[in-house]
Amino acid sequence: MRIMKNIVTVGGGTGSFVLLSGLKKYPVRLSAIVSMADDGGSTGVLRDELGVLPPGDIRQCLVALSDSSEKMRELMNYRFEKGGLKGHTFGNLLLSALEKINKGFLRGVEEASKILNVKGEVIPVTDSDINLYMKLKNGKILKGEHQINLNFEIEKRGIKKIYLTPKANANKNAIQCIKEADMIIIGPGNFYCSILPNFLVRGISEAICKSKAIVVFNCNLVNKRGHTEKFTLDDYVDAMNKYLGKRRINFVTFNSSKPPEKLVKRYQKKKEFLIPFLREARSKRNYKIILTPLLNTEQLKFSKADHLSEERSFIRHDPDKLAKTLMFLLEL
Amino acid sequence: MRIMKNIVTVGGGTGSFVLLSGLKKYPVRLSAIVSMADDGGSTGVLRDELGVLPPGDIRQCLVALSDSSEKMRELMNYRFEKGGLKGHTFGNLLLSALEKINKGFLRGVEEASKILNVKGEVIPVTDSDINLYMKLKNGKILKGEHQINLNFEIEKRGIKKIYLTPKANANKNAIQCIKEADMIIIGPGNFYCSILPNFLVRGISEAICKSKAIVVFNCNLVNKRGHTEKFTLDDYVDAMNKYLGKRRINFVTFNSSKPPEKLVKRYQKKKEFLIPFLREARSKRNYKIILTPLLNTEQLKFSKADHLSEERSFIRHDPDKLAKTLMFLLEL
Repeated sequence: MRIMKNIVTVGGGTGSFVLLSGLKKYPVRLSAIVSMADDGGSTGVLRDELGVLPPGDIRQCLVALSDSSEKMRELMNYRFEKGGLKGHTFGNLLLSALEKINKGFLRGVEEASKILNVKGEVIPVTDSDINLYMKLKNGKILKGEHQINLNFEIEKRGIKKIYLTPKANANKNAIQCIKEADMIIIGPGNFYCSILPNFLVRGISEAICKSKAIVVFNCNLVNKRGHTEKFTLDDYVDAMNKYLGKRRINFVTFNSSKPPEKLVKRYQKKKEFLIPFLREARSKRNYKIILTPLLNTEQLKFSKADHLSEERSFIRHDPDKLAKTLMFLLEL
Repeated sequence: MRIMKNIVTVGGGTGSFVLLSGLKKYPVRLSAIVSMADDGGSTGVLRDELGVLPPGDIRQCLVALSDSSEKMRELMNYRFEKGGLKGHTFGNLLLSALEKINKGFLRGVEEASKILNVKGEVIPVTDSDINLYMKLKNGKILKGEHQINLNFEIEKRGIKKIYLTPKANANKNAIQCIKEADMIIIGPGNFYCSILPNFLVRGISEAICKSKAIVVFNCNLVNKRGHTEKFTLDDYVDAMNKYLGKRRINFVTFNSSKPPEKLVKRYQKKKEFLIPFLREARSKRNYKIILTPLLNTEQLKFSKADHLSEERSFIRHDPDKLAKTLMFLLEL
């Protein structure tokens, strides 16, 4: 009998969805740790109005790992298009109702996992009701993913610190999974809003540093305007290691293929550019780069009612290429 | 091998929920035909804002026949308590989303039946987008279940006619089930808003009249203020036969036990009284009365967010007593 290896992913949002959709085809034990700092769109409205924890990123991970019918998965992502429900995703309403009925977000997520026949585990990084803050070097404080995302001067002003309020302890289950992991996979995802917030939760960085797992960073494809606009791969790794408290990243997967010129131009109009690959590093690298084609070449469609559809990226990782590369690293 | 008998119920709302909850424990083939005239509460808002067909009564029947966990059933009936979602029942949102995704209400209901592991079939009486109208003898026209329900002068003014706009054809599946029925069970339920509207759909009354089934009417327990305030059992049967076009009712179940005095008084305050049993009929009866204890003696609870909770009846049929009586008739 072969023992299944434990893989832990750390992230949130669409990046995690893509990653998990690929990984779930392999015979590994999957645990998806998900950031709880989201406060935009449907999720933001539900947090404000119902006082629930943010369901959006959790939903995406549940759908990615669901073994239910295509119809069920479509239902979870269905977005109401009119009236008082406009913009709400059905799956977000499901998670909010389950949180209320089960008197707790973690129990609600467990219940949703059963309903959706989820293979693996989706783990909110904390069950505290937190908000993400960013203090810039000019003293300005940005509250929430929403404000941070819409501010394009972050890089210019410089970040003094990112923090959560209130301070939050990690979900014990998240710590346990990290402890038992053979591989910890970070990203892809919104760097300041989906990736780093996980490391701000008490206990997560320490657990990752202590773990014996290989740690891999799936480097984003495109730099975000005004956030990581000038970032090289090394900048991402440096920033993460700073929050982890240790140079803990062992591998970075980095896309080597070119997206269609049309898409690149569309991004350029929004002042977003592909992350450059620099053969020569600024600092001595203590991690290995896996340079390989990772691009999704399929067209993506969004609901008309999705206010953020223009914001969502169209240059994406291919789930299968990404998973295959990671499995190769796992077997090394 | 014993062939299962076919039972068709005709109604809508809480009455059907109670009836089906009892019947589903017996080895019979159940088809629940459900009125589509509802336009109040969460259902009314969804019809207006999303342009969907009324989910509320369908939801109640699906939950009654669901073989899913208690948690799943609780989820379907969960009512959001705050914000833009306030008053919406989760199951109503599910049905509305499934109607949109499946591009049709009937297909949406089928899909929901699978998700909820429904034993039997829940059949919308029509898939036309109809409104119920009532014209009074003084010329006044009441539009929709909502207006009709809140008007307490219906009995005093007299009803000229009840009709649907636009005229609607029956769901073919409903006609087929009636054709194959061994027993057709009407009520209990809101007489003008849940029971009679079924007979206004083209094809339903004819099919019931032609069918070889025993037809049973579960007489309500309480007369509705200003609607059926002065009704005796015979009045109910007469009114129904008029809409059916034939004296088609074979049996009437009628409760013989007394509710607690406290409840009776509470109803009296709202000018609602138990339906009197008169041994001597006004007209020669061509149906048999089954006089037996049918009362639910358990206390019922409602959500705080349920705007209609005060309106919902607390003197109710007991599902098991009702089903047992009906099974006795089926075996006659």
